[in-house]
Amino acid sequence: MTRAEDVRAGLRGRVAQVSPAGDHSVAAGRLLRTQGVTAAAGFRAAGIAAGIKASGACDLALVFNEGPDYAAAGVLTRNKVKAAPVLWTQQVLTTGQLRAVILNSGGANACTGPAGFGDTHATAEAVAAALSDWGTETGAIEVAVCSTGLIGDRLPMDTVLAGVTNVVHELHGGLQGGDDAAHAIMTTDTVAKQVALHHQNKWTIGGMAKGAGMLAPSLATMLCVLTTDAAADPAALDRALRRATARTFDRLDVDGSCSTNDTVLLLASGASEIAPPQADLDDAVLRVCDDMCAQLQADAEGVTKRVTVTVAGAASEDDALIAARMIARDSLVKTAIFGSDPNWGRVLAAVGMAPITLDPDQITVSFNGSAVCVAGVGAPGAREVDLSGADIDVAVDLGVGNGQAAIRTTDLSHAYVEENSAYSS
Amino acid sequence: MTRAEDVRAGLRGRVAQVSPAGDHSVAAGRLLRTQGVTAAAGFRAAGIAAGIKASGACDLALVFNEGPDYAAAGVLTRNKVKAAPVLWTQQVLTTGQLRAVILNSGGANACTGPAGFGDTHATAEAVAAALSDWGTETGAIEVAVCSTGLIGDRLPMDTVLAGVTNVVHELHGGLQGGDDAAHAIMTTDTVAKQVALHHQNKWTIGGMAKGAGMLAPSLATMLCVLTTDAAADPAALDRALRRATARTFDRLDVDGSCSTNDTVLLLASGASEIAPPQADLDDAVLRVCDDMCAQLQADAEGVTKRVTVTVAGAASEDDALIAARMIARDSLVKTAIFGSDPNWGRVLAAVGMAPITLDPDQITVSFNGSAVCVAGVGAPGAREVDLSGADIDVAVDLGVGNGQAAIRTTDLSHAYVEENSAYSS
Repeated sequence: MTRAEDVRAGLRGRVAQVSPAGDHSVAAGRLLRTQGVTAAAGFRAAGIAAGIKASGACDLALVFNEGPDYAAAGVLTRNKVKAAPVLWTQQVLTTGQLRAVILNSGGANACTGPAGFGDTHATAEAVAAALSDWGTETGAIEVAVCSTGLIGDRLPMDTVLAGVTNVVHELHGGLQGGDDAAHAIMTTDTVAKQVALHHQNKWTIGGMAKGAGMLAPSLATMLCVLTTDAAADPAALDRALRRATARTFDRLDVDGSCSTNDTVLLLASGASEIAPPQADLDDAVLRVCDDMCAQLQADAEGVTKRVTVTVAGAASEDDALIAARMIARDSLVKTAIFGSDPNWGRVLAAVGMAPITLDPDQITVSFNGSAVCVAGVGAPGAREVDLSGADIDVAVDLGVGNGQAAIRTTDLSHAYVEENSAYSS
Repeated sequence: MTRAEDVRAGLRGRVAQVSPAGDHSVAAGRLLRTQGVTAAAGFRAAGIAAGIKASGACDLALVFNEGPDYAAAGVLTRNKVKAAPVLWTQQVLTTGQLRAVILNSGGANACTGPAGFGDTHATAEAVAAALSDWGTETGAIEVAVCSTGLIGDRLPMDTVLAGVTNVVHELHGGLQGGDDAAHAIMTTDTVAKQVALHHQNKWTIGGMAKGAGMLAPSLATMLCVLTTDAAADPAALDRALRRATARTFDRLDVDGSCSTNDTVLLLASGASEIAPPQADLDDAVLRVCDDMCAQLQADAEGVTKRVTVTVAGAASEDDALIAARMIARDSLVKTAIFGSDPNWGRVLAAVGMAPITLDPDQITVSFNGSAVCVAGVGAPGAREVDLSGADIDVAVDLGVGNGQAAIRTTDLSHAYVEENSAYSS
């Protein structure tokens, strides 16, 4: 099997397990990973090699909403150090309307000061001018900007602006456009991440994402663009997106690091002429975000194990989430899992530091379904549990209540250290 | 140079730098790393190979206070999951009196339930009985117990109890006894850690410590025993010890993990017949703890760089400490430093997540004295700063106040992953 096939096989095996998104009714429809932002009617996309990356790889993507509606919502990083494109996108989202999203890899345009913000503004203006020339009157305020790559350097603006003209000319509505865009936003990702849900009620939601490091709350992914041909106003989109990200991207934690550039956008064209009930929209957005997180986890930097940490029996869902995050971030737990070592004592040491209601003598831990610690004491055979597989479930029951939550994470491997110690990756 | 010499050379180079302990008057006296718990008058110690470790290495240590005073204080882990010896020691410390501390490596006796607590109690009883036989009437309530090693397994009690009799017979007051004890508590440590301060006013404080992983607040070290021949009551010892640990052990953070067994004890024999003023005692305990932390940092698991993260210009000392800890714990910062990569953007991304007063446009960062980011924007030449040496100073000025604090940490290396992914290390 190729790596991608192996990953997907592993993920299929997870279906019966607890999803970090919590219990949710499965949205009625078909989920496909071969389609992305152009699966929904009313959207065109393109991805090109503009020359921002020295390697010559694709580095500039455009997602364009043809309407008739232009409703949009977004969730942005909670990091106080926000990149210029995040500051820009935060502003343009206040209108609840977007016609286009321009995304570049090869540079985060973060910590670049007022000049960097000027670069983002100029990029949005150039996209608006090119779209207007192309026949769709567009203002810069209708253009969101996303950037990803190294923090701290200015973008090569001559290259970016020339690329903007080219990428507008490449726009097309077929699946290839979405696929090109999904590839153009990759940095250390090894595979493009796309998903589309075709709802049985004749509307569609699709999306693309990138992100392999700096995966943590408050947003796990660096960049994610979702598109739907449903008719929905900005408030409905905003509700569905916030609810979904809180239960998906916010519960994916690879390295505890939170990016300066994290952005998740949801654009609605209304082209299906279907206005789904809020509950259907909520479920569909949640399902798409959940799948996107599974793809991000499976391709995280240096991953050799996909780990789900589930904490049940907590005094509240918040307590369960805090405990699950403490375990998921603990370097000693993560290195033990890399070594396939059922060293459950490290799980207890980690959870013991969580600022939550806890009774050490009530804690039960299991690895892949095998009890390793019962009522705070090691279970027979705990040291012999086989953790050699690629999917590891760490289940903790605190025995003090009914709160439950789960976090997706990965192991801490040599490859993670290697990938992140290379010069300014 | 050997590794130990190299470490010491590096540490000598730090003298002029900001100590995580903050500004403190240097206690008047001579600091020696060749002496430990028996440097102070009135103390005997011993370390033996009792057979607890399968390797046959030394694994049982005893520190004995001959008096005339038996005052004692301790600071224990804040982890809610506390090992049996911590629960025992917490109890016996309520009297403010200790005659002896028995310490074993080769097993943490944590998460072992009531049976494990019974083992600790039996160990203290055996020490008391052996000391009484030896001529010093002692009760179990005067014996603190410390254990270190793998969490979750019961100790081989026949071996431990036989060892207790033997280690009492080995007790002696020379420096060798302290040295043997310091070696017997080592686990993944590569060097024994001892220090003694001979105060100009004719009293002495010495100590030993072990700890190489699970170094984090609330106590950085697994185990540390300090002894002094000063005359001081338990309240004075407690004040000096809490003040010192808050500024030293609590500011050493190698991997964010906090042990179930962390214990720092301070025993006073009064044998010098000197009762130093509280300020002198405070300063001496702080200086000894600070040096012990430098030794622990230098020998941390997988360390290739000794890193000090200093945050100044914060709204308060608490804010500075939170920010420094966020940076010191960030896996992306730590891997970049391992790779000698001056990737300052990761420092900004880390500090941006700190729940403190922050103005992203006021942040200044320097590596080893070279400015890499000024007012939130990259400085010329930032990517060329040389971080190839073993000592890295990360200095951040938030520009919003006068609060300052520092954290000692290390890089995140292949060796850290290797050491912690081996089977149940």
